[in-house]
Amino acid sequence: MIDFEFYTPTRVFFGKDTHRKVGEIIKDYGFKKVLFHYGGGSIKRTGLYDQVVKSLSSNGIDFVELGGVQPNPKLSLVKAGVELCKREKIDMILAVGGGSVIDSAKVMAISALADNDPWDFVTGKAKPEKALPVGTVLTLAASGSEMSSSAVITKEDEQLKRGFNSDFNRPLFSIMNPELTYTVDKFQTGCGIVDIMMHTLERYFTTTRDVDLTDRLAEGLLKAVIRAGEIAIRNPEDYEARATLMWAGSLSHNGLTGAGRDSFLRCHQIEHEISGAYDFVAHGAGLAIVFPAWAKYVYRHNVEKFCQYAVRVWNMEMNFENPEETALKGILATEDYFKSLGMPVRLSELNIGDEKFEEMADKCTFYGKRILSGYVPLGKKEIMEILELCR
Amino acid sequence: MIDFEFYTPTRVFFGKDTHRKVGEIIKDYGFKKVLFHYGGGSIKRTGLYDQVVKSLSSNGIDFVELGGVQPNPKLSLVKAGVELCKREKIDMILAVGGGSVIDSAKVMAISALADNDPWDFVTGKAKPEKALPVGTVLTLAASGSEMSSSAVITKEDEQLKRGFNSDFNRPLFSIMNPELTYTVDKFQTGCGIVDIMMHTLERYFTTTRDVDLTDRLAEGLLKAVIRAGEIAIRNPEDYEARATLMWAGSLSHNGLTGAGRDSFLRCHQIEHEISGAYDFVAHGAGLAIVFPAWAKYVYRHNVEKFCQYAVRVWNMEMNFENPEETALKGILATEDYFKSLGMPVRLSELNIGDEKFEEMADKCTFYGKRILSGYVPLGKKEIMEILELCR
Repeated sequence: MIDFEFYTPTRVFFGKDTHRKVGEIIKDYGFKKVLFHYGGGSIKRTGLYDQVVKSLSSNGIDFVELGGVQPNPKLSLVKAGVELCKREKIDMILAVGGGSVIDSAKVMAISALADNDPWDFVTGKAKPEKALPVGTVLTLAASGSEMSSSAVITKEDEQLKRGFNSDFNRPLFSIMNPELTYTVDKFQTGCGIVDIMMHTLERYFTTTRDVDLTDRLAEGLLKAVIRAGEIAIRNPEDYEARATLMWAGSLSHNGLTGAGRDSFLRCHQIEHEISGAYDFVAHGAGLAIVFPAWAKYVYRHNVEKFCQYAVRVWNMEMNFENPEETALKGILATEDYFKSLGMPVRLSELNIGDEKFEEMADKCTFYGKRILSGYVPLGKKEIMEILELCR
Repeated sequence: MIDFEFYTPTRVFFGKDTHRKVGEIIKDYGFKKVLFHYGGGSIKRTGLYDQVVKSLSSNGIDFVELGGVQPNPKLSLVKAGVELCKREKIDMILAVGGGSVIDSAKVMAISALADNDPWDFVTGKAKPEKALPVGTVLTLAASGSEMSSSAVITKEDEQLKRGFNSDFNRPLFSIMNPELTYTVDKFQTGCGIVDIMMHTLERYFTTTRDVDLTDRLAEGLLKAVIRAGEIAIRNPEDYEARATLMWAGSLSHNGLTGAGRDSFLRCHQIEHEISGAYDFVAHGAGLAIVFPAWAKYVYRHNVEKFCQYAVRVWNMEMNFENPEETALKGILATEDYFKSLGMPVRLSELNIGDEKFEEMADKCTFYGKRILSGYVPLGKKEIMEILELCR
C-alpha cells in the first residue's frame, strides 16, 4: 500500500423522492442565488425540470437558468456560464443531470471565482484556489462526478477532450434518486455500467502490491454491478438494480477504489481521444472497446492479477497449469458482458477505421510529451498498437 | 435498500511519517490555539508525544495539554476539558491516541461551544448544534472513531456507558500512520480486530433486503481484515497488515458498511453493559464474547444470511440439505478466529458470573424503556438469555 489522502466531503441524500427536497436543502445551506444548470430537453420531458423549479420556488430560492449542456461538455458553454455567474452574483451552482452537466458546473464553479480562462484549469496551466459550491441532482449512474474530484471538458475547435482533478471539484452535496434513472434508455444504461466498472477496473490493475483490502472492495463492487447491470438492462424500473448502479457509480470514482495504490485511468485517456475525434461515440461505448484491447495487450505483464480478476470477479476456475488461459478468460468474460449490455466492443461496429489512429496517439501523448503511466507504460507506439486491437 | 444520507467529510492523511506533519496541517487550516489531548503514558514512552510537540512548536502552534484519558473515557475528564477549552479560548482539539481519546475529544468539542452538561449530549437530552474542530493522530486500529459520527463516554459514578451519533462528531482530519500501531500489544491488537469486524458485522446482519452492494463490500472488508489480523498478531511490525487493519477500521465505521440498510449495533449495546459494569473488560474482548452468543441466539431467524456469511466470508461449502449446519459453521469459525487472536469468548474466562446479568439487562433496555431493534428485537428477557450464552 502506498501513502494516500482520502477526502470525500460530498453530502449524499440517497433514495426515493429525494430530488423534491432540493430547494429545502439549498435553503438549509443558506444560499441565496443559484445557477440552475442542465442539459438538453430530457429533464423537461420527464417533469424533473418542473419539480426542481417548484422546490426552488417554494423555498424562496432565487435562480437563473443555463441549459444546453451536451454530452462531452463544451468549453464555450462553460465560458458563457462563468460570465453569467459573475454578472448575476451567483453563490452556488445546481447541476441537474449526468456527468456532463456536473462537469460543466464544476469548471464554471472554479472559473467563476478566478480571472483565468477556464481551459487553464482543465489543462493544469492554473491551479484552482477556490470554487463556488456545486450541488447536484443526479439523473444518470455512470461518471461518478457527483462525488468525484474530476471534471472533463471538450475544447470543440481543436477536438480536445481533457480532464483534471482537484478537491475543489468535489460537490458540496449530491441528491441521488435511483428512480430518476428509470427513463435512461438501454444504450445509455449500458454505457453507464461500463463507465462505473472501468472507474474501478482502471484502479484495480495497479503496479502497487499488498492492496488486498481495496482489491476486495473493488471485486465486491464489480460483482454487485455486474448483477445489477443485467437486471437494469432487462427491467429499467427495477429500483434495487438502479440503486445499486447509482451508489456503485459514486463509490467507483470518489477515491475509495483508488486508495493506497498507484493508478492511472489509461483506458479513459485513450477513450477521450476516440470520443474527442468522433463526437458521436459515447464515453462508455468507447471504454467498452478500449478495455478488452488494452487488457489483451498488457495481461502477460502480470498474469497473476488478471487471474485474480477472473477467479474472484467472474468465478472462473483457476487453471494452475496454464494461468494465461484463466487470465484471458476473465478478459473475454468482460468483453462478453459488455456485448450483452448492447455495447460495441470494436471500432468497426461504429464504422471507425484507422484513419485517425496516429493523430489520436499523438494527442494522447501530448505530442510525445507524456507517457501513460501505471501498469505498462504506454507511449505513442503502444497506444497505436492498442488502437489496432480495437479495430 | 432503504434511503440514506452519507457524509464522511474527514480528510485522511494515511501513510508513513504522516504524524510528523501534524503541525503543518494545523497551520494550513489556520488554527491558533490547540488543546492537545491524549491518554496515559504510552505516547510518551514511544516518543510520539515529543514528535507531536516538536511539529506543533516548529509550526508556531500555541497549545495546552490535557492527558489522562483512560479506556472507557470518563465524563469527569470531559468536563475538565470543556472548562479548559473555554478558559483558554481553544479553537481546535487535537486528539492523539485511540478511540477513547478521540471520543473524549469529540464530546469536549461539542460541549465547549454550549452551556449544557456534556452528559446531556451523550444521552440525547440535548442536540449538538456546533462543535470545535477535532483533528486526530491515530495510534490504534479499532474504534473507527477517527472518521465516525460516534462517541462513547462512561459516567463513572453510575457505571453508565453511553454512546451517541452526530455529524458534529466527525473529525475534521485524521492522520493515520500504521507504524504508530507497531507497539500495540497482542491483546490490544486482537481487541481492535474484533471491534473492526464487529462494526461491519453488526450492520451486515440487517433485516433490509436487496443490499447486495454493501454486503459485498462488507464481505471483502472482512476477508481482508481476517487475513491481515492473522499476520499482525504474528508479526506486529508488518506494515501492510497494520495498514490494512487501520484503513479497514475507518471504513468499518464511517458509514460505508451501513449505507442503505437498517442496522443497529446491538452487540455493542450489550457489550457496553459488560464493560460498564466490569471496567477491566476491554471493549473488543467483550464483543468477542457477545457476538457468538448473539449469533447463536438469532441465526435461525434468517438462516440464509448466516449461510451467505459462512460461504462468502469463511469459504465454507454450502450444505443445501442442511443450511443450519452451514450457518452455524460460520458462527463457530468466527468464534475460533477470535480465540486464535487471544480473545476470550466466554465471560467465565474473565471470572465473570451471572451476578449482574439482570442489572445489565435493565440498564441496556433503559429499565424497560427501549428494545434493541433490528434483526431480532431484544428486550430484557432476550438480553438475559444472550448473556446466559455468554457464560
